[in-house]
Amino acid sequence: TINEERLFRMLSKSSETGAIPQNGLRRLALSDKDQEMRNIYKDWCKEAGLTLRVDDLGNMYARREGKQDLLPVVLGSHLDTQPEGGRFDGVLGVLLALEVVQTLNDNGIETERPLEIVNFTNEEGARFEPPMLGSGAIAGVFDQEYVYSRKDAEGYSFLEELERIGYKGKEENRLSDFHSFLELHIEQGPILEDENIQIGVVEGVQGISWLEVTLTGEADHAGPTPMHLRKDALMAAAEIMNQLEKEIATTDVTVTVGKISVSPNSVNCVPGEAHFTVDIRSTNDDLRKEALKETKNTIRRVSEDRDVGEEMKELWETEKIDFDRSITEVIENSAIELGYSSKRMLSGAGHDAKYVHNLGPTAMIFVPSVNGKSHVPSELTLDKDIVSGANTLYQTVLTLSNE
Amino acid sequence: TINEERLFRMLSKSSETGAIPQNGLRRLALSDKDQEMRNIYKDWCKEAGLTLRVDDLGNMYARREGKQDLLPVVLGSHLDTQPEGGRFDGVLGVLLALEVVQTLNDNGIETERPLEIVNFTNEEGARFEPPMLGSGAIAGVFDQEYVYSRKDAEGYSFLEELERIGYKGKEENRLSDFHSFLELHIEQGPILEDENIQIGVVEGVQGISWLEVTLTGEADHAGPTPMHLRKDALMAAAEIMNQLEKEIATTDVTVTVGKISVSPNSVNCVPGEAHFTVDIRSTNDDLRKEALKETKNTIRRVSEDRDVGEEMKELWETEKIDFDRSITEVIENSAIELGYSSKRMLSGAGHDAKYVHNLGPTAMIFVPSVNGKSHVPSELTLDKDIVSGANTLYQTVLTLSNE
Ligand SMILES: NC(=O)NCCC(=O)O
Ligand SMILES: NC(=O)NCCC(=O)O
Repeated sequence: TINEERLFRMLSKSSETGAIPQNGLRRLALSDKDQEMRNIYKDWCKEAGLTLRVDDLGNMYARREGKQDLLPVVLGSHLDTQPEGGRFDGVLGVLLALEVVQTLNDNGIETERPLEIVNFTNEEGARFEPPMLGSGAIAGVFDQEYVYSRKDAEGYSFLEELERIGYKGKEENRLSDFHSFLELHIEQGPILEDENIQIGVVEGVQGISWLEVTLTGEADHAGPTPMHLRKDALMAAAEIMNQLEKEIATTDVTVTVGKISVSPNSVNCVPGEAHFTVDIRSTNDDLRKEALKETKNTIRRVSEDRDVGEEMKELWETEKIDFDRSITEVIENSAIELGYSSKRMLSGAGHDAKYVHNLGPTAMIFVPSVNGKSHVPSELTLDKDIVSGANTLYQTVLTLSNE
Repeated sequence: TINEERLFRMLSKSSETGAIPQNGLRRLALSDKDQEMRNIYKDWCKEAGLTLRVDDLGNMYARREGKQDLLPVVLGSHLDTQPEGGRFDGVLGVLLALEVVQTLNDNGIETERPLEIVNFTNEEGARFEPPMLGSGAIAGVFDQEYVYSRKDAEGYSFLEELERIGYKGKEENRLSDFHSFLELHIEQGPILEDENIQIGVVEGVQGISWLEVTLTGEADHAGPTPMHLRKDALMAAAEIMNQLEKEIATTDVTVTVGKISVSPNSVNCVPGEAHFTVDIRSTNDDLRKEALKETKNTIRRVSEDRDVGEEMKELWETEKIDFDRSITEVIENSAIELGYSSKRMLSGAGHDAKYVHNLGPTAMIFVPSVNGKSHVPSELTLDKDIVSGANTLYQTVLTLSNE
């Protein structure tokens, strides 16, 4: 089993790098804090005897050779966080992978297959939209030019920032053929905790659609402009949001408006413009697509009724996927062998594994999230659950790397 | 009559200072651009032979002596603008006053009473809330400490910025006793244009209430968090905005949500916090107060239903006022004498004159706004209407200053 003391030392170092109040982390992709964490992580990889390479997207690969020249077993996740995120989302998948390799070192175990650990760039999509740009690019979902040209809210591009922090490597370093890919992650939802289960065996990821909406009414002075003469972009947005919540969201489809801004944004100005985003998810692609269509219709209808202009842009779409059955079986058997309770389940969040799945056999391991919370400072996974996750990952790697 | 060429030269210089696309102005109170405009204006005042003094709030007074040592006739408005404002709001009242004085100079006219022109600080309230801080302070509505401690969105205080731009003068320089106060302003509403009238004789200003609202729900990941487990602060705000528009706004009461922001403001995060403002106005104080009460009840009810916390702060309140009848009569007679059509009306917007009215006899002159627009770059008053306004102001000043 893994070395808990070393593991929690690494985790606590990560929790200091970009720390914000209430135990949170703000480590946006390609920021100074991301750079600092990458440098620390790079040193750890070297100390563990791993060989590091970086690809053209800033994805970092740390390799441990196997006894044979076979396709590697690849483990990993991401070290970037949300603007007001937690300490575990992504981080756990990278650091537990490193702990697994160090435990192999401690035990003098040579695996048949090589092992690689990946830290993917900009999984969160919080700084550069959409999410999973690093894994999506190697999976052929986004081309290099698209990724490089993504801009953050201040106008800095992915490429500029990648070069600035010194993590632009070579395209030939990208992940290519592998035997299997494994991502351990926090559940980010309430199910495992509710059912008191230690290990989630993740069989797939639900589909996601992102829409960016701009409504253009007419800015006006709040004082002398009577209600019936207004074209208030925010009131139009409010009506739309209400209808999305009441008429389109269901128990099978979530609808979230996560970002909003208005212009001119002054107390005594009727908003002339409103911008907002819509995130739609379902484990059923048909339901999701239907909800997206209805969302667009609602936006059109309300805008027309109010004589307000609308512009909609589909920012992102991923289909529901099913992970590799033989890997999920190995994960499940590992948990059983170790005496942990486990459950097959789907992921509500997108993950790098979702895109890596395009390239080869892939699956994920979930550990419980206290109160189902994530993307918030209070995000928490208990120490004992982290240890169960690490041991399950270790056991699964042992099996896969000797296949 | 006034010198059109000189007047439009001054106006076009002002329109360059803080210019933004589409003929707009961004000249926020106590910003670099405000400083630049103040310096230009100061030079113009000196060229016109006026004596300048600045008070502790940055209000600028330019004085022309009269034949006798009597109480002065005071004219003025403000040179600051909204973040995406127009070229006329406030500016016209200051520059037309200066043109009136220059015309007196040209004609070698000495008035019995002294004249003073005021440029009030932070009328808009767009950078430092609430509006009319400079005029409100001299009228005893706000104390110096309150004004000094107002902060902009970046955390800079009124006092810091006042000192930085070099316009902190002495408390003893404040406007005190005067014979009459006159503010010429654009209407900012559609009435004069609709009825094809040249001069608005402003008999009063409607009452205003500002409320600042914070809703505190729970931030969550948009993916794995089912709808029924959410405490979405933005969806609560949307329901509230809808109800304000449908149930509280009427033909007699306007309700405006001009500012909104959410946190964490990430596409895949359920908003844990929402902040917004409510601006409520009516010419009937009872109706306004009733609407404010109902607004608060709505916010409380919706928040309770959704198990979301609410915090409300009354940012600003001004009662409806009636201007001085003898001055409005002089304005009306001046318009008639000059052959301009005129109409008695109320102001929908707050103005410095509203607070100056606390100190002595006050009234306002309105000129038409094209499409009733203001607080937007497309704000426009036609040259011919500016000239009618300037002549009416000149005529009114001649009468009042020789009373
Ligand atoms: N795991 C995670 O939070 N990924 C971000 C992509 C998403 O929004 O699901
Ligand atoms: N005139 C003007 O726009 N004043 C700002 C105060 C208000 O909101 O009415």
